[in-house]
Amino acid sequence: MSRGGSILLDRFHHPAQVVVMGFGFAIAVGTLLLRLPLATTTGESAHWLTALFTATSAVCVTGLAVVDTSTHWSVFGEAMIALLMQVGGLGVMTLGTVFTLLVSKRLGVRARMLAQMETKTLSLADIRRIVARVVMFSLACEAVAATVLTVRFLTGYGEPFGRAAYYGVFHAVSAFNNGGFALWDDSLMRFVSDPWICLTIAVTVVVGGLGFPVVFELMRSWRRPGRWSILTRITVATTAGLLLSGTVVFLVTEWSNPGTFGPLDTAGKWLAAFFTAVMPRSGGFNVVDISQMYPSSWLVTDLLMFIGGGSAGTAGGIKVTTFGLFAFIVWAELRGEPRVNIGHRSLPEAAQRQVVAIMALGTGIVAVATYVLLVITPYTLDKVLFEVISAFATVGVSTGITTGLGSPEQVVLVVLMFIGRLGPLTLGSALALKERSRRYQLPEERVIVG
Amino acid sequence: MSRGGSILLDRFHHPAQVVVMGFGFAIAVGTLLLRLPLATTTGESAHWLTALFTATSAVCVTGLAVVDTSTHWSVFGEAMIALLMQVGGLGVMTLGTVFTLLVSKRLGVRARMLAQMETKTLSLADIRRIVARVVMFSLACEAVAATVLTVRFLTGYGEPFGRAAYYGVFHAVSAFNNGGFALWDDSLMRFVSDPWICLTIAVTVVVGGLGFPVVFELMRSWRRPGRWSILTRITVATTAGLLLSGTVVFLVTEWSNPGTFGPLDTAGKWLAAFFTAVMPRSGGFNVVDISQMYPSSWLVTDLLMFIGGGSAGTAGGIKVTTFGLFAFIVWAELRGEPRVNIGHRSLPEAAQRQVVAIMALGTGIVAVATYVLLVITPYTLDKVLFEVISAFATVGVSTGITTGLGSPEQVVLVVLMFIGRLGPLTLGSALALKERSRRYQLPEERVIVG
Ligand SMILES: [K+]
Ligand SMILES: [K+]
Repeated sequence: MSRGGSILLDRFHHPAQVVVMGFGFAIAVGTLLLRLPLATTTGESAHWLTALFTATSAVCVTGLAVVDTSTHWSVFGEAMIALLMQVGGLGVMTLGTVFTLLVSKRLGVRARMLAQMETKTLSLADIRRIVARVVMFSLACEAVAATVLTVRFLTGYGEPFGRAAYYGVFHAVSAFNNGGFALWDDSLMRFVSDPWICLTIAVTVVVGGLGFPVVFELMRSWRRPGRWSILTRITVATTAGLLLSGTVVFLVTEWSNPGTFGPLDTAGKWLAAFFTAVMPRSGGFNVVDISQMYPSSWLVTDLLMFIGGGSAGTAGGIKVTTFGLFAFIVWAELRGEPRVNIGHRSLPEAAQRQVVAIMALGTGIVAVATYVLLVITPYTLDKVLFEVISAFATVGVSTGITTGLGSPEQVVLVVLMFIGRLGPLTLGSALALKERSRRYQLPEERVIVG
Repeated sequence: MSRGGSILLDRFHHPAQVVVMGFGFAIAVGTLLLRLPLATTTGESAHWLTALFTATSAVCVTGLAVVDTSTHWSVFGEAMIALLMQVGGLGVMTLGTVFTLLVSKRLGVRARMLAQMETKTLSLADIRRIVARVVMFSLACEAVAATVLTVRFLTGYGEPFGRAAYYGVFHAVSAFNNGGFALWDDSLMRFVSDPWICLTIAVTVVVGGLGFPVVFELMRSWRRPGRWSILTRITVATTAGLLLSGTVVFLVTEWSNPGTFGPLDTAGKWLAAFFTAVMPRSGGFNVVDISQMYPSSWLVTDLLMFIGGGSAGTAGGIKVTTFGLFAFIVWAELRGEPRVNIGHRSLPEAAQRQVVAIMALGTGIVAVATYVLLVITPYTLDKVLFEVISAFATVGVSTGITTGLGSPEQVVLVVLMFIGRLGPLTLGSALALKERSRRYQLPEERVIVG
């Protein structure tokens, strides 16, 4: 192994430090770029907190905005936001994939991705290969989504080619990286009845948020589910379950709400419900007015946002793996089974405790932030909890209170977006890498959570 | 062992059935009693749902009320409510204690309480002795509290002896059983500055809610904390921690709220804050207007109510044992320790999974009930969540929406009070009793949760 390789790997013994510094640096650079007079439509420098908030929201691929994106930022500013989303999205996807490979030494994904087994560390060449694959995969997905969107803006809405392509690329990048920024002041509400736009964005959000290792495995062996690793099984099953149940619950709850699904025809209601169920796994766009949704739908959105998307992708939240494993643990306990078995594999006890720790800390962070915002803002729990979970899980939807927040509240959300973006990822891998002795009973299989 | 003993013990193989049927029967009888014309001040039969709601609230020692207790119910009706609270409180305390002894076979509490070890079942004589001790302990505590309250009502408020004694006994029973019913339409708000009343009620609530096994052990060896069982250590530590932090948080949050602590002097604020921190562990009285508290205080109350009081006492919630063990599990995981050690004992992995299962199901029940009430009522999440957790954790405080609830909502709360009262208790013991093989590493010690 080369000398550069060892230094890099030494650093990975403190993965949290590397990750936090990298993202902090990207946010600092982003803030400076957005402070340039060039970045605003008025040509005046943006307020430093507005720039910091927007840069954090973009790098953490959250999408919360204290100013309207298209009216406040110039084309240069918007391009910077897209770039920051791309950097942030590639960052979490690469890091998540590297951590997954470091953690899942023995079986499953690693062997298939690297054609090597039983080594203890990743070489620099391995990491380079991973980065290259993640970048190629991201650009390919974004290219496909951008093409479809551009064609639709050209043919369906009569936009000139330049503008159609600009909109297509921006929203493809925003969707794939689960960035949540849109260039219309109503997000995507004007496209609520356009399945081309809605489905393209929704599918891109899901693919970006599944996680690279899962996508990689699905591409290789999508016809042989029996061979999938636990990671892929859990991710696919939980994703499908949450999308289906989310769609049905939103459909039922909002069916006749005059402010949301009420005016739509039946097919439109289904499309809007599906879109609304996809976005909490941390896409962050909306095709109906969230402030008009019933508080019961906000609660459902809260839960879906907290769970988030897949590990090692661009999604946020505690991750569907964490939630899916948690459900398995509880189910095994209720059935009185001494071990938690998934398929023909047994889930290590250490992994069970990691799941519990991540859920507990996520809940604790959300509770503390909610308490703080309840104290310093005049809003009710409905809206504060929604905003807090949206920031923590890097979703970016809002009941509309973001733009009215004062400076202290904005700082709270900036911290929350940062913690929410990096906390589950670094905590999950730190716990898994630190783990001590393991006992073997059934063949155990490691799964990254968070 | 006598034939009667074996039948009883056979039944304990299905503890959930016995408990559910017993409480259901008590509620049915209570409903019929409260339907008697004699039970209301007007002499007309109460509406059946009002009677069912009140009987459930009394037997489950919750204290939520759809009608004002003193104006709607006659002295006979009030006496029936006190009786139902007494029956419900004795029921949960006895059952909880029996389950604790069944579960904690090897060590700790059982040997000390029964002077016998290593047997697999409890004999009928054992159970009789437990019931007798629980009854004697309850009556003794209630007698002391009733005496102090009666003297105070006599001397401090000039009530005639009969009425002072009636108030004293009713509120002593209500407090010890964590019943939450009061005979004033403002609960205990008129006594906010009276430390005799406030502290007597608060201490009685805490003692009733600590759990009989813990109180028993504390009485025997309160001077030797080093010998306490895990159950007692966790209960005492978590109780002290929650009361202290709850008092401080309420003090800070409500300090200058003109609707609550604002008008009080400093000593009065401390007294009110302590009282307000005690009541969520499921006393259910209030000395300040809950509807005037800030939403941030409601959120803190929500968390404290969900946690509740001690196992095998009159308190509700998921129990401080469950929460305390959960905190230990998460802490051990974050420190990377392979085992969860408390003092010189190791917490069995099965117990860890029981903790997680009870917290998960409690959260799930609260989430579903909150969603349902958000759909069928016009209230915001603040108030609905508060009401749901208050019912689930059998606390009985309300932001004021209980009296305005329609029939479907009342039915939801009736079901929720029943599930909340019996769910954690029966689930916790069912999981613990069903448990399979155990591995011994460090000496393990069993703890009942829920
Ligand atoms: K987002
Ligand atoms: K109560």
